[in-house]
Amino acid sequence: MNSEKIPDIIIGRLPVYLRALQRMADNGLNNTSSQELGEHVGISAAQIRKDISQFGEFGKQGTGYSIPFLLDKLKEILKVDRKWDVALVGAGDMGHALARYQGFNNRGFQIVMVFDNSKEKIGQKIEGFAIEDSASMVERIKSAGIKLAMLTVPAPFAQSVADKLVQAGVKAILNYAPISLNVPKYVKVQHIDPATHLQRMTYYL
Amino acid sequence: MNSEKIPDIIIGRLPVYLRALQRMADNGLNNTSSQELGEHVGISAAQIRKDISQFGEFGKQGTGYSIPFLLDKLKEILKVDRKWDVALVGAGDMGHALARYQGFNNRGFQIVMVFDNSKEKIGQKIEGFAIEDSASMVERIKSAGIKLAMLTVPAPFAQSVADKLVQAGVKAILNYAPISLNVPKYVKVQHIDPATHLQRMTYYL
Repeated sequence: MNSEKIPDIIIGRLPVYLRALQRMADNGLNNTSSQELGEHVGISAAQIRKDISQFGEFGKQGTGYSIPFLLDKLKEILKVDRKWDVALVGAGDMGHALARYQGFNNRGFQIVMVFDNSKEKIGQKIEGFAIEDSASMVERIKSAGIKLAMLTVPAPFAQSVADKLVQAGVKAILNYAPISLNVPKYVKVQHIDPATHLQRMTYYL
Repeated sequence: MNSEKIPDIIIGRLPVYLRALQRMADNGLNNTSSQELGEHVGISAAQIRKDISQFGEFGKQGTGYSIPFLLDKLKEILKVDRKWDVALVGAGDMGHALARYQGFNNRGFQIVMVFDNSKEKIGQKIEGFAIEDSASMVERIKSAGIKLAMLTVPAPFAQSVADKLVQAGVKAILNYAPISLNVPKYVKVQHIDPATHLQRMTYYL
């Protein structure tokens, strides 16, 4: 296995497999096939076998995949066999929704800091965290060694906040603002954009 | 062109091209190349040319793509050359964030109804809409002929709400709840799941 050579498109599918497998495990299942997994995620069995085989021989002809084993392997590959600290920037509606989101549980992430620049919000509690002044953001993130951030500030501020996150040593940004961010190539950005998801479905209507 | 034959993975990339092209247009650009577009979206020029050529000859060797022309064509293909009415179910933090989201403007969508089952919330205003009782949801959506819904209710309620949306004639659901939905095959579901996006980036850290 040479991680340099795995196409990004395959990496992008692994978290989807992981989510489906976790759901099967939660439902008490122990084994699955590429066929069954494929039906859950809407991807062909052949594609799933090909994707997973990039990382080793994890299934057996005829008996399929052990769910606990494959879960462990996928978590290890995606580096979510640990817990990553995440900084949340922007304590508006979306920030509050993310702070309360139950979907991070046991999936490798915990929000540990929340920043905002509004005097009214600073010091307020959001799910147990005191909202901190974004003026101290760079220093706080840097000294805590945080590598992941979620950005939920209004669009006009998103680029300048992203610049500060990069300066603070953040290597991956989940961007909720409806604009593209310019960051150095070594920084990963994923964009959460509901309009894009809707447009992908209207094609079929 | 036979829309039945275009792989879903290609359809999934078109909204990303559309967003990047719109941004170029907003910045006053009139022409682009697959190379330049590729740099904006992180997809190879060859892949972009191949994807777009599925739908016709939209570019010219040497001169590239006319941005206004390609924008029009992509909007037409994705059926966002019109405005779709969208029902929003769940008026919590995420629902409020979506109701206030500026990223739907000029991208083919408008929220026209907001539902919740909380007595405290029903009748309250959210961005100009009175929150309606979800007890009347099926009837309201059906009589308005709405085909798209965004689901931001807590996970334990998501499946039963999805069932009602399907009953009401909804054909595409954008699901923010951290669970998979079981719906008939003719109903499209897209899942917005921040943990999946984060996991896709931790691989590279």
